[in-house]
Amino acid sequence: SHTLKHFPINLRTSMDGKYKEIAEELFTRSLTESEMRTAPYEFPEDSPIEQLEERRQRLERQISQDIKFMNELGGVDRTDDGWMKERVLPMEREYQRVSISGEEKCGVPFTDLVDAAKCVVKALFIREKYIALSIQNFCKTTARELGELGEKPLDLRIYEEIPETPVDADAPVHPPVSETHPYENQDTKNMPADTGYSCKMVDGVMHVYTKKSPMEKSTELDLPYPDLKEYIADMNVMMALIINGPVKSFCYRRLQYLSSKFQMHILLNEMKELAAQKKVPHRDFYNIRKVDTHIHASSCMNQKHLLRFIKRAMKKYPGEIVHMEHGRGQTLMEVFESMNLTAFDLSVDTLDMHADRNTFHRFDKFNAKYNPIGESILREIFIKTDNHIEGKYFGHMIKEVMADLEESKYQNVELRLSIYGRSRDEWDKLAQWAVKHQVYSDNVRWLIQVPRLFDVYRTKKQLANFQEMMENIFMPLFEVTINPRSHPELHLFLQHVVGFDSVDDESKPEHHIFNMDSPLPADWTEEDNPPYSYYLYYTYANMAVLNHLRRRGFHTFVLRPHCGEAGPVHHLVSGFMLSENISHGLLLRKAPVLQYLYYLAQIGIAMSPLSNNSLFLSYHRNPLPEYLSRGLMVSLSTDDPLQFHFTKEPLMEEYSIATQVWKLSSCDMCELARNSVLMSGFSHKAKSYWLGPKYSKEGPESNDIRRTNVPDIRVAYRSETLLEELNLITHAVRTKELDNIDEEDTLSMAPIGAEGR
Amino acid sequence: SHTLKHFPINLRTSMDGKYKEIAEELFTRSLTESEMRTAPYEFPEDSPIEQLEERRQRLERQISQDIKFMNELGGVDRTDDGWMKERVLPMEREYQRVSISGEEKCGVPFTDLVDAAKCVVKALFIREKYIALSIQNFCKTTARELGELGEKPLDLRIYEEIPETPVDADAPVHPPVSETHPYENQDTKNMPADTGYSCKMVDGVMHVYTKKSPMEKSTELDLPYPDLKEYIADMNVMMALIINGPVKSFCYRRLQYLSSKFQMHILLNEMKELAAQKKVPHRDFYNIRKVDTHIHASSCMNQKHLLRFIKRAMKKYPGEIVHMEHGRGQTLMEVFESMNLTAFDLSVDTLDMHADRNTFHRFDKFNAKYNPIGESILREIFIKTDNHIEGKYFGHMIKEVMADLEESKYQNVELRLSIYGRSRDEWDKLAQWAVKHQVYSDNVRWLIQVPRLFDVYRTKKQLANFQEMMENIFMPLFEVTINPRSHPELHLFLQHVVGFDSVDDESKPEHHIFNMDSPLPADWTEEDNPPYSYYLYYTYANMAVLNHLRRRGFHTFVLRPHCGEAGPVHHLVSGFMLSENISHGLLLRKAPVLQYLYYLAQIGIAMSPLSNNSLFLSYHRNPLPEYLSRGLMVSLSTDDPLQFHFTKEPLMEEYSIATQVWKLSSCDMCELARNSVLMSGFSHKAKSYWLGPKYSKEGPESNDIRRTNVPDIRVAYRSETLLEELNLITHAVRTKELDNIDEEDTLSMAPIGAEGR
Repeated sequence: SHTLKHFPINLRTSMDGKYKEIAEELFTRSLTESEMRTAPYEFPEDSPIEQLEERRQRLERQISQDIKFMNELGGVDRTDDGWMKERVLPMEREYQRVSISGEEKCGVPFTDLVDAAKCVVKALFIREKYIALSIQNFCKTTARELGELGEKPLDLRIYEEIPETPVDADAPVHPPVSETHPYENQDTKNMPADTGYSCKMVDGVMHVYTKKSPMEKSTELDLPYPDLKEYIADMNVMMALIINGPVKSFCYRRLQYLSSKFQMHILLNEMKELAAQKKVPHRDFYNIRKVDTHIHASSCMNQKHLLRFIKRAMKKYPGEIVHMEHGRGQTLMEVFESMNLTAFDLSVDTLDMHADRNTFHRFDKFNAKYNPIGESILREIFIKTDNHIEGKYFGHMIKEVMADLEESKYQNVELRLSIYGRSRDEWDKLAQWAVKHQVYSDNVRWLIQVPRLFDVYRTKKQLANFQEMMENIFMPLFEVTINPRSHPELHLFLQHVVGFDSVDDESKPEHHIFNMDSPLPADWTEEDNPPYSYYLYYTYANMAVLNHLRRRGFHTFVLRPHCGEAGPVHHLVSGFMLSENISHGLLLRKAPVLQYLYYLAQIGIAMSPLSNNSLFLSYHRNPLPEYLSRGLMVSLSTDDPLQFHFTKEPLMEEYSIATQVWKLSSCDMCELARNSVLMSGFSHKAKSYWLGPKYSKEGPESNDIRRTNVPDIRVAYRSETLLEELNLITHAVRTKELDNIDEEDTLSMAPIGAEGR
Repeated sequence: SHTLKHFPINLRTSMDGKYKEIAEELFTRSLTESEMRTAPYEFPEDSPIEQLEERRQRLERQISQDIKFMNELGGVDRTDDGWMKERVLPMEREYQRVSISGEEKCGVPFTDLVDAAKCVVKALFIREKYIALSIQNFCKTTARELGELGEKPLDLRIYEEIPETPVDADAPVHPPVSETHPYENQDTKNMPADTGYSCKMVDGVMHVYTKKSPMEKSTELDLPYPDLKEYIADMNVMMALIINGPVKSFCYRRLQYLSSKFQMHILLNEMKELAAQKKVPHRDFYNIRKVDTHIHASSCMNQKHLLRFIKRAMKKYPGEIVHMEHGRGQTLMEVFESMNLTAFDLSVDTLDMHADRNTFHRFDKFNAKYNPIGESILREIFIKTDNHIEGKYFGHMIKEVMADLEESKYQNVELRLSIYGRSRDEWDKLAQWAVKHQVYSDNVRWLIQVPRLFDVYRTKKQLANFQEMMENIFMPLFEVTINPRSHPELHLFLQHVVGFDSVDDESKPEHHIFNMDSPLPADWTEEDNPPYSYYLYYTYANMAVLNHLRRRGFHTFVLRPHCGEAGPVHHLVSGFMLSENISHGLLLRKAPVLQYLYYLAQIGIAMSPLSNNSLFLSYHRNPLPEYLSRGLMVSLSTDDPLQFHFTKEPLMEEYSIATQVWKLSSCDMCELARNSVLMSGFSHKAKSYWLGPKYSKEGPESNDIRRTNVPDIRVAYRSETLLEELNLITHAVRTKELDNIDEEDTLSMAPIGAEGR
């Protein structure tokens, strides 16, 4: 055999001659090390993957055998697709519970507990009031527990029973498809009649009058909305609560407790949960319902899709006039020529969406600020609803996205469309776009995002004061509610709009405080932007009035703002008081009191770790897994696939990354998916099909694992934990009451929570 | 407006009455804070995303305008699809360079430098020798620099010029598709003739003789392979080097230097790189070639795909006998009934692939160890090449994956198939499987993975000694090389096999050291497993001999083992000495000397962060981004989509996650993709189409951005940096030489690297 006796050059070093010794010594060490690793007396720190696999396999096999066994005796009498008939075995709800005994259960002195509990309850009452007042949804369990502390604060919808489910227990998981297109041959004659009301905005809030001429105060309809003074007082209470030392440390402790409790739950029940999931026939993570509850229409397609669409358009409509340049029309061809590009040249790099998400939604400012060159023209042509071609291309592209969703069957989205409040006809134009191009899908609902750009429009003299902006946004909605025939397309379009979003860069410094000294909307004439809480309050107030008006037979809207993505923490206070659920909520990780309150109120939080990762918080530091373990109502959403996602399945990609980076279990993933449906704006009926007929009930009975693939055990753990947490607090408050019962009389003596039932 | 004057219950706390003050104080603080954030004197720590966007936009627009401008004057004379005609503008190769001046450039005293340099050079010579001896590829630049230190150690293939490119500079990016199926109507008559040689294994390595009867030593062919004594001596040298203190700190410093240098490069040239990418017409990350260089055939389909396939099979072939249970055949239907499952019931959860990847490849041990129940039967039926239906289903599934790849156009894979070495007919069965089911695609090549399971087979008395295992693996390969007609299918199949992989759990403790006292393969009769280095040496040695034999006109094989995923670091020493490139290499992060050597030798490292994440190292701690910044030849691969990936595009998913979590630039991604093609086993011709006709040259001329979307700047930076690094070392060694020139004569006085040219 060939060998090479000498190196071609002198490479003698200090080690020469000792190589063998050193090497042997090293080998031996590595030997003993690897022995060490499996030493009998210590738990192997990083034991060979094989051993771990072996251990898991043994458990796996155990489970599989159990299930096989149960199936054999439990029996599954199956009709053709009669999988729903399967008998539910008791075993599935039994699990290992963690319970704490002894005094001072919560680890803080009783007096502190009471003081903290009062603050927490006070905060919850505040939220309940504003949510009820605006006919949004408030967590049932929390509402009941609060209710037992006293008379109901107001007689409101949340206490009305949710209508009985229209869905049979064994119904299929897919609702019947709407056969007629909702926008086809709609006759205004069939629309509800004019109520003959009129409306007028006073101090930034709409008022409605029974007469056509809104003159006599006497004729005003009594549509409740929160008084400004009270709102600001309540906001102050909230602000004080969240920085109160004892309250902070109390909430912090409880959150820590919830984390550890969940860890224990997993250690004790992981295998039971897994077994339950395996036992469900057919169902798995891929075929359960998921709703992307935070995604912007202008960037809901991925880059490759957009690119392909543009290239196709170039081939199909080169001669179409798509853009006005200095008063003369440009054809698509000419636009490309002016950019010295052919359709062929175009690439994702040239489209360059990654570079400026902001020109799309959030910070629409850019469109205005800059005279767009090159790509920006394409953006105007292809991803605007209101351009020279009346958003034709954008409409077609959205419909392609819709087709993909319908094909995927189990994926749904709530797309954001913008209303700016610059002019009165924005709503009609948007509605005409949707109706004209028939942009509708059973898998899609709309949210209306209002960019906080008053300062820009004011600077450009497009608005005289803030009230004008509010009027532009809400007047058409009141008009069409009063008389659908006044804006027929809008009437049709609104049936698929679930609510309002408020968007902009939260990290922008705010130069004003919202208090009683703040100018009223009509007097807000300066060029500065009003603060976040100001925007939110007036949007909320008008929505509240509108919702009461819409009870004439139309569905009501909810507020679901971007909130707590960045900037000052008090945005999350406004969000807590006024909105049914929020997007982002990243900053809750820095505010234990608020995080605890968001937990107790089970406020939905649509999180988008990929989007955050690029803008604010590196992926693995994202608090989502912590929130989830503590039981906050979180879900996964994509926010902006055009910018952040690479595959044709952005939502699956989002789930995939989360699962991988945070090592989520299949059960965690399915819980996230179920949350996304719960917090979405899809209909009661749809949810009944997707989650189960009793989804709106409390506890495990609300769950149907055959549809959600979430084990009852997990649902039971969540609801029991929430109930215990609420009882701890209401109990503390009440006990205190009992001492000074005399000085108080508003106290109801109703039996308390858990024991009560 | 409705208000709620009192809470229904006494909630007075210490803070009552102070709310307003506290709140105002807090608001004001948050105000000043946000002012702070943009104070003029400090760089905004987290400045409003809008400002950052604004800054970027300004740059973006600048670039776009430059490009537009250049296009206008630079002119692009385009034929129909003649995008290749475009004139290359000089600007694209100019960039900001970082250069170091002064003595002691490397930051360590000169004497230390010399000593360290000698060690490094010695190690590189060792690798060069073994790679050359086995006709694998050694980095051209490194080889030349070493060559200038002395005479060529051996006259070897790496010094032969790579055949001139068959591809025209303006050829399309897609090679012509092979119109005839390579497995269709192949006649053995057309196969190369029998050489009449014979072969015999001696001391674990195959020897070849010109006569049919391998008796007379005289007739042995001279096929070089490394002598065992020398190999062990070299290994000892390597072991000593990697723990030598001064060498370690030298290499550590150099690696740090490489990191910082790259950071500076990015800060200075990011925009230039981006501009270059934008300027390329049509090309973007989506339409450049990517090769998945580490993926196991048995898990290359995603879970949904596997599930759908099984369900389809149930519908199509319920009556087919697919499995033998206690001597009697079971139909697919019966198998399902025995598991008490209908096709409908089946879900990803029941399939339960996530729970035991290991039964698939890596640790095939499990198949043997356990009598499989339930799902494992499905595994045997659907993902084995050698079962009752001769791997029919598996073949069909692989062909579906192949179809998807061909449709995606730009994605290629190198699938691992197992040869166990238990019996002599494994190769023929495997080849028959491929040929019979016509499992072939231009987008796919095969790697053969050999699980290190001698101990298992030995324990079960299936093997008498280790040499038997080697014979089972290599004898058929020698036979078919000597006389293709002896194994016709194998002859055809081998044309698409690029090399060998060695797989098992590296973290398993090793109970033996490989040294001169180790028993020879024929004497290795104990039930313990030989160590990693023992497996690798004998695989390598036989492959080396085989490659020399195959020069009769067949292509040669390479060694590409799993290496450095876990376990003792010296696995990476064997990998460094014997293999063209490796998979994983995670542990290089703990061994600076080896990491530096892998860099200097530009050894390909196929990394799979998602796979690592689940087994050994949490995602964000994965060293890939560090390796990449330092210029190691790394690529991204999926390893095991069935287990770790969720979407229909596993490789894109892998890229997406890496890009998101580590914030890679489009240029980084394209560099990774280019690396994956370079280190892959696809043909010289294919690479010439995919990367450019000159891809095998050095420096920017090797790059064709119109195909790779990698800016020449990046390629230039990499090659210049490597050259400087090599010069630093060879220079040091040579200078030392000049002192004691007398005592040495093997020294070549050739002019050195950079200056030389």
